Amino acid sequence: MADKGNLVVGQSGGPTAVINRSVVGVIHEALKHKAIGKILGAHNGIKGILQEDFIDLRALSKDTLARMMEAPGAALGSCRFKPSQEDCEKVFEVFRKHNVHYFFYIGGNDSALAASIVNEIARARKFELRIFHIPKTIDNDLLVTDHCPGFGSAGRYVAQAFLGNDLDNIALPGIKIDIIMGRQAGWLTTTAAMAAEQEGDGPHLLYFPERPKRLIDLITDIEAVYKKYGRALVGISEGILGPDGQEYVQSNAIRAEVEQLAGKVFVEWLDKFGEVMDAAGGAKKDAFGHIQLSGTGILADFISMAVKAVLNPRFGNKLRVRADTLGYAQRSFAGCVSETDAREAYEVGREAVRYAMRGNIDGSVVIKRLGSGENYAVEYNCVKLSKVAAGTKDVPAKFFNKAGNGVTQACKNYLAPLIGPLPKRPRL
Amino acid sequence: MADKGNLVVGQSGGPTAVINRSVVGVIHEALKHKAIGKILGAHNGIKGILQEDFIDLRALSKDTLARMMEAPGAALGSCRFKPSQEDCEKVFEVFRKHNVHYFFYIGGNDSALAASIVNEIARARKFELRIFHIPKTIDNDLLVTDHCPGFGSAGRYVAQAFLGNDLDNIALPGIKIDIIMGRQAGWLTTTAAMAAEQEGDGPHLLYFPERPKRLIDLITDIEAVYKKYGRALVGISEGILGPDGQEYVQSNAIRAEVEQLAGKVFVEWLDKFGEVMDAAGGAKKDAFGHIQLSGTGILADFISMAVKAVLNPRFGNKLRVRADTLGYAQRSFAGCVSETDAREAYEVGREAVRYAMRGNIDGSVVIKRLGSGENYAVEYNCVKLSKVAAGTKDVPAKFFNKAGNGVTQACKNYLAPLIGPLPKRPRL
Repeated sequence: MADKGNLVVGQSGGPTAVINRSVVGVIHEALKHKAIGKILGAHNGIKGILQEDFIDLRALSKDTLARMMEAPGAALGSCRFKPSQEDCEKVFEVFRKHNVHYFFYIGGNDSALAASIVNEIARARKFELRIFHIPKTIDNDLLVTDHCPGFGSAGRYVAQAFLGNDLDNIALPGIKIDIIMGRQAGWLTTTAAMAAEQEGDGPHLLYFPERPKRLIDLITDIEAVYKKYGRALVGISEGILGPDGQEYVQSNAIRAEVEQLAGKVFVEWLDKFGEVMDAAGGAKKDAFGHIQLSGTGILADFISMAVKAVLNPRFGNKLRVRADTLGYAQRSFAGCVSETDAREAYEVGREAVRYAMRGNIDGSVVIKRLGSGENYAVEYNCVKLSKVAAGTKDVPAKFFNKAGNGVTQACKNYLAPLIGPLPKRPRL
Repeated sequence: MADKGNLVVGQSGGPTAVINRSVVGVIHEALKHKAIGKILGAHNGIKGILQEDFIDLRALSKDTLARMMEAPGAALGSCRFKPSQEDCEKVFEVFRKHNVHYFFYIGGNDSALAASIVNEIARARKFELRIFHIPKTIDNDLLVTDHCPGFGSAGRYVAQAFLGNDLDNIALPGIKIDIIMGRQAGWLTTTAAMAAEQEGDGPHLLYFPERPKRLIDLITDIEAVYKKYGRALVGISEGILGPDGQEYVQSNAIRAEVEQLAGKVFVEWLDKFGEVMDAAGGAKKDAFGHIQLSGTGILADFISMAVKAVLNPRFGNKLRVRADTLGYAQRSFAGCVSETDAREAYEVGREAVRYAMRGNIDGSVVIKRLGSGENYAVEYNCVKLSKVAAGTKDVPAKFFNKAGNGVTQACKNYLAPLIGPLPKRPRL
């Protein structure tokens, strides 16, 4: 390696409330090491590297760095781009050309995979390139690490939204349904449970991709809660599946159920929406030929209308049913971070640089939890890139209740330090 | 009047982030006055009075009051209930029975009207009843007062959501549309503008009920912004109207337009959703026989699909268009208040009691703005109940830009002290 090697840091995938802190962590630590030459930001992740589009991060003022710490989004720009082997070869060539010997890529498991491929190329060419993946995802689904930076703040947003929704629902009782992000795993949906302090508090029911549900079971659950408390607050993962394992509004099983429970018009409505999405271009079809309706408000509307159609006659046709899809605010609301998450997102950036400066090693920084409850503490370790790139982590079975419509105390214990304390409810 | 008169305070209509502060303001001030006997909370507003369902507020601990200060919702319970003359007679009888001589009703103009009617009854019966309306509404549409407690915090939520959305949209560029609460007036939609610091920042376009829009104009606006910046962030009031003055997804004019621009399937889809809402029960029809689709995610889905259908072919069929309906979090997110709003919501409660203790007067507490910018200050005045009950206040024309798709600097100057400072953007 030359006397000085340059450094590149990039951001990838969906923004979070704290991903910029990881960049600042990298910068702050890199500034301490004389072996590091230029400190460059890749504009829009791997895409920027391919275009040799870099931002000089040494030129940033303290004020700008301070603003980055507070800002959601991804200040370097991001991308949703899975590089091919050829792209990775090109990335390596750009690094060699620009004398880049340190590369830090902040993202999910796809980013770890991309980093791993570039790493193999550099190794084969005998070019010393120290590559670190820095974990980031609100989905909390990375392997090995106890939890992922970005998840705690998104979870805090969800918990605060549910606390507010529940206080709202107590004041004006009805059935309120909220759709929560997380297509593949129910991690973010579990965080809604933190809004409930005691029996009777909402959310009363939670539904997860890991626990497929018949429509009738979901409606029966809601009816029971409504009869007991005169109201119901329900959280549903956007990835909820029908009993056939298909996404809810596309599931043949759910469609058959809703036709029987509420009328054929429900199925016609879903099909019509599919046609509209097709007309709008870019609609994807699933194995059954149904248009994928994700990224819209349809799931919230579908479930609230189905619940109302079935339950309204049983409650004097006066049922108030409303549904919200929580949306992008979950990952990028400007003004909601978990303290733990904010601290750790910064630290994983610093730790990655510290590891890289110890020798010619590569890897992913993972968080290991040392204590629980008030003794919560963590240490940061380094694992092989391939271990994190290999797949995703499901919510463990012990975190779901038996009925598959809520979480256990073990789950709340796991979440508590990540989300942080919430405002206490007034009870009159 | 007897030696001691009892006091009743109630909450009405949609909850806000700070309405509980007005209750605490009433309690704190009432505790200072020996002429006041019991301090009672009406459980669920007028409904609770009719059922003689009261909460002893003297019994609340300091801790409970402190929690109320921090909690969104309506801790006494609320109602959406417009009392009849007969109901108001009953309310008066309950007050006479319970020796209630002070009544404070926190809500919008309907609450002022109810208070006004009860007041007239008491006056006719020569029963000394000091009645005050305490303003509250995220809609900011009450007459006389400069602004309404509850609005600043809802506006701050909207501004923070848009700031986060814009930083998200910069990181992963596309067209992002957010639907904002406020069916009758565009006040809350104006607050989104506070997220933009300078030219190029989003939101780039805002649409209001006060400025009806053809679909093609909206799409043309978005296309121009997208061409200029490679992205677009758009805020739309849920009350946006078509050129015929009808609600957007029900407007015959908009339906004719979308059929021509994007295909008949769009209209069939809307009609099908109307049939579903009808099947779910309680669907209301407008003058044209269209089912009212409000309170769902349909407006966001409709506009995003129409925009995508028209613009996608012009941008290589790679356009990313997403839409969120901001939902209940706007009025009840637990953890987002404007400092000004929080202070004023408390003060209007205290001021109402102070006025009531000065003599046998009645009225509504209104906020008068004394200074602007950094010299922002207010005083609290008292006006006749009938003045506030008489109607609602529109956003003044000088707050909208000429194109009717954004706000003026005068509007931002009005909003700034109500919303409070936002995090500054990092600019790399």
